[in-house]
Amino acid sequence: MIHAAPLTGEYFIAGERRGSGEVFHAYDPACGASIDDIGFFCSSEQDVADACAAAEAAAIPYADLPRETRAAFLDAIAANIEALGDALIERASRESGLPVARITGERGRTRGQLRLFASEVRDGQWLRLRIDHADPARTPPKPELRLRMVPLGPVAVFGASNFPLAFSTAGGDTASALAAGCPVVVKGHPAHPGTSELIAGAIVRAATDTGVPAGVFSLLSGTGNALGAALVADPRIQAVGFTGSRGGGEALMKIAAARTQPIPVYAEMSAINPVILLPEALAARGKALAAGYIGSLTLGSGQFCTNPGLVLAIESAALDAFLAEAGQLVEAQAPQTMLTAGIHAAYEKGSAALAATPEVRTIARGVHPTGPHEGRTALFSVTGADWLANAELQHEVFGAASIVVRCADRAELLAVLSALEGQLTATLHMDEADIDDARALLPVLERRVGRILANGWPTGVEVTHAVNHGGPYPATSDGRTSSVGTLAIDRFLRPVAYQDLPAALLPPELREGGQPGVLSRIDGKWTI
Amino acid sequence: MIHAAPLTGEYFIAGERRGSGEVFHAYDPACGASIDDIGFFCSSEQDVADACAAAEAAAIPYADLPRETRAAFLDAIAANIEALGDALIERASRESGLPVARITGERGRTRGQLRLFASEVRDGQWLRLRIDHADPARTPPKPELRLRMVPLGPVAVFGASNFPLAFSTAGGDTASALAAGCPVVVKGHPAHPGTSELIAGAIVRAATDTGVPAGVFSLLSGTGNALGAALVADPRIQAVGFTGSRGGGEALMKIAAARTQPIPVYAEMSAINPVILLPEALAARGKALAAGYIGSLTLGSGQFCTNPGLVLAIESAALDAFLAEAGQLVEAQAPQTMLTAGIHAAYEKGSAALAATPEVRTIARGVHPTGPHEGRTALFSVTGADWLANAELQHEVFGAASIVVRCADRAELLAVLSALEGQLTATLHMDEADIDDARALLPVLERRVGRILANGWPTGVEVTHAVNHGGPYPATSDGRTSSVGTLAIDRFLRPVAYQDLPAALLPPELREGGQPGVLSRIDGKWTI
Repeated sequence: MIHAAPLTGEYFIAGERRGSGEVFHAYDPACGASIDDIGFFCSSEQDVADACAAAEAAAIPYADLPRETRAAFLDAIAANIEALGDALIERASRESGLPVARITGERGRTRGQLRLFASEVRDGQWLRLRIDHADPARTPPKPELRLRMVPLGPVAVFGASNFPLAFSTAGGDTASALAAGCPVVVKGHPAHPGTSELIAGAIVRAATDTGVPAGVFSLLSGTGNALGAALVADPRIQAVGFTGSRGGGEALMKIAAARTQPIPVYAEMSAINPVILLPEALAARGKALAAGYIGSLTLGSGQFCTNPGLVLAIESAALDAFLAEAGQLVEAQAPQTMLTAGIHAAYEKGSAALAATPEVRTIARGVHPTGPHEGRTALFSVTGADWLANAELQHEVFGAASIVVRCADRAELLAVLSALEGQLTATLHMDEADIDDARALLPVLERRVGRILANGWPTGVEVTHAVNHGGPYPATSDGRTSSVGTLAIDRFLRPVAYQDLPAALLPPELREGGQPGVLSRIDGKWTI
Repeated sequence: MIHAAPLTGEYFIAGERRGSGEVFHAYDPACGASIDDIGFFCSSEQDVADACAAAEAAAIPYADLPRETRAAFLDAIAANIEALGDALIERASRESGLPVARITGERGRTRGQLRLFASEVRDGQWLRLRIDHADPARTPPKPELRLRMVPLGPVAVFGASNFPLAFSTAGGDTASALAAGCPVVVKGHPAHPGTSELIAGAIVRAATDTGVPAGVFSLLSGTGNALGAALVADPRIQAVGFTGSRGGGEALMKIAAARTQPIPVYAEMSAINPVILLPEALAARGKALAAGYIGSLTLGSGQFCTNPGLVLAIESAALDAFLAEAGQLVEAQAPQTMLTAGIHAAYEKGSAALAATPEVRTIARGVHPTGPHEGRTALFSVTGADWLANAELQHEVFGAASIVVRCADRAELLAVLSALEGQLTATLHMDEADIDDARALLPVLERRVGRILANGWPTGVEVTHAVNHGGPYPATSDGRTSSVGTLAIDRFLRPVAYQDLPAALLPPELREGGQPGVLSRIDGKWTI
């Protein structure tokens, strides 16, 4: 059992702790005050260059390790995170304002993700092995071709404030990039520097213990945008993983596109996740839907990418009753501490702007906050015609704010859906008699969203094979990919074909008979 | 048998011929004169909007057609192209300056590609079907998730001058986008407008005959860049396929990145395709290597993306002999007509600039041209140190110009390879005794290129499953993908997950037991 080492405020370059000079402090949003136990050192541009140079130097050795070593590395990270014990939970909870129970659950998810990717590395299907045998008798002679996926190279990962464990230092982006064979340079989120340091220590120990080159992982630390900008601009970085605001994601996309060699950016940015209450379901169980809705909306103070920020229904007495019920539930909602002072301020500004919009009706607000950075739940309604006339109304307000759009009829509901930007999810609440309505909406939803749910709530994303946590722009910067589940590994791979290469030079998986247990396509036929 | 209809100079919007006002003329590069038999109408920005609106309207109906219909459509295009007979061959040869034999071969490849993608549509593996069953007993309950790939939506395809059939109106980009279920709007290359019109007629007839919505295909026609720029900027276009110059590809990337909704651009742009002559192979068979080299270099007047523009070898008497032999072969090379006046002028400028570079030695030039746009083969050499000191020397000169880099030793050869930008291919010429040298170079090549060949020549790309015609920037704009072979279909797809959706609403392939013969991943296990 490895216990958490005391925090030093240092960051990590290729396994070595480093830090001197300028520091910043962690912040406890529940108290509204800095955590003064330690200062966290700010990484410099030289640190960025050093981390990238180490990552580049490690890229080929790491990619060439046996798959089993890479899998063992991921498993060891998971075990080391577990071994950090309560010190990790307490620190992450204090830095994020998220309850201990939520952080404990998130730690389980983080370990589960790492182990899922370890299992995926062993499975090897992501190699996409393909072999086409030669045909020397053909005119012209057909060459032998063998193909596999190889890692892109060093990946920059940005920690996310709303998932200090599951989408930060050893979160989904890091796990999937390491699984793909890419070294990772993390830019830790300044909202949880102590959490990042603890997790980085767990990764560094896992690398040492499993014989993985130290350059495979670095953690940079600091406030402001210059550090991340320098990281994305570094010519050795080959891809970027980011979860955060649309503004942040778009800034990284601009930097990546302006490089001499542009690189892919996987930014999970902005969604309002429409929930459609179809007429029969609304009439049959409006009260239960209201309870489910407000429960999903207020989970974690609404700070989820999949938070239901938009509800659509057709005008009816049942909709009035639903709104009244939802309003009562909102009024009873206790305020919850938000992640950072900045997120809280943006939420206040966004919800106040909605409340001040003439055509928007405030249905209810939650209990008035007393703590320094508590978010007050906000429920609004607007007619379909007014929503369609004001594009501002589909901008995400990150937090527990949501708008119910009262559509005049089915045509207006369809018009609202058709006017939506790309989304992570859409949800249909439906009964048996709603099925034709649902069927008519599905093709429109498939064009616009990454995950379609029936009779559930979008918060809560299952980490598995058949999940997609992605969606057309601006839900993500690259709707061809998922940042959750085993599909995420594909983001960091590209194909290489080998033509007529002597067997002695082929990677082992591409030699004749070298594919035991790995899905492969041989002369066009799939075999396992 | 459908014969080629007489040319009218019209373009096609959603199956309808259209054209009035301004015209341009095709050009016969062998004669150096316009082909005055007909004027080709220039599409307007309104035509762009109309084509995109029709494509958007067709997107959902086309995606929802049975896979068999989509496959039959691709097969019918192939058959209709065949039925165009000699009229197509003659027109394409006249407009491109490429010999009849080459165009005939290219027609075979074009038909083969269409049929390969038809077969791929039937195979269905690109759907990437995944099912994770529910587990209501788990805490929290595990939802059911089902995932498939869906088409991105309308795709803009730019015809390529160097492949008037295989990478133009019904070429690889069009075939793979249509296979993925995406409507296509082609911007025809102005170097072969008659060829484009003939092929477009074949596509339109195939759509009619197989019951595919007319909006699935449009052909826009015109000169200058404004038409293509408007097409890429149109908000309904969801991806771009392009084969051409680096400048052209980068211009499209900029337009795509500046959209409100940025979209993927698949531009196949620029490569010099290093060929490495390892010492033993060079000593053993330098004469044969010289013949293979000059044959590959001058094929099609050097106008291939995979043309060997860079040869690397270590200083030796064998290298001197190789250069002497290659030089003699070059001097005997008859000039060949290049594709367009612009390409010929750029080739003249590029090869003259190389010849005028002090550290570059001109080994040989081909026979002096007599025709108006004939390219004169050019062979240069430079030392490794001089090559490393001048980044200009790795810029592609499109045509039959190539540089042999004389490296002082293995370290300098590795340094040259390490300084290379991304490439489509790299080739190793090696004997048994070269195997350790080759092994040392492979990891460096894997980081930089898309296809690695041994003892062959990079021109000639097999259209199959295990091929990759792609590579890191600037070989292509997106090194994660291939523009040739069955992998190409993935460029136009994105995942959608369905959570707890009633079976009646699921796409047929995702229903329980609905995957006969289609590769699928069920609860993590692959099955066929």
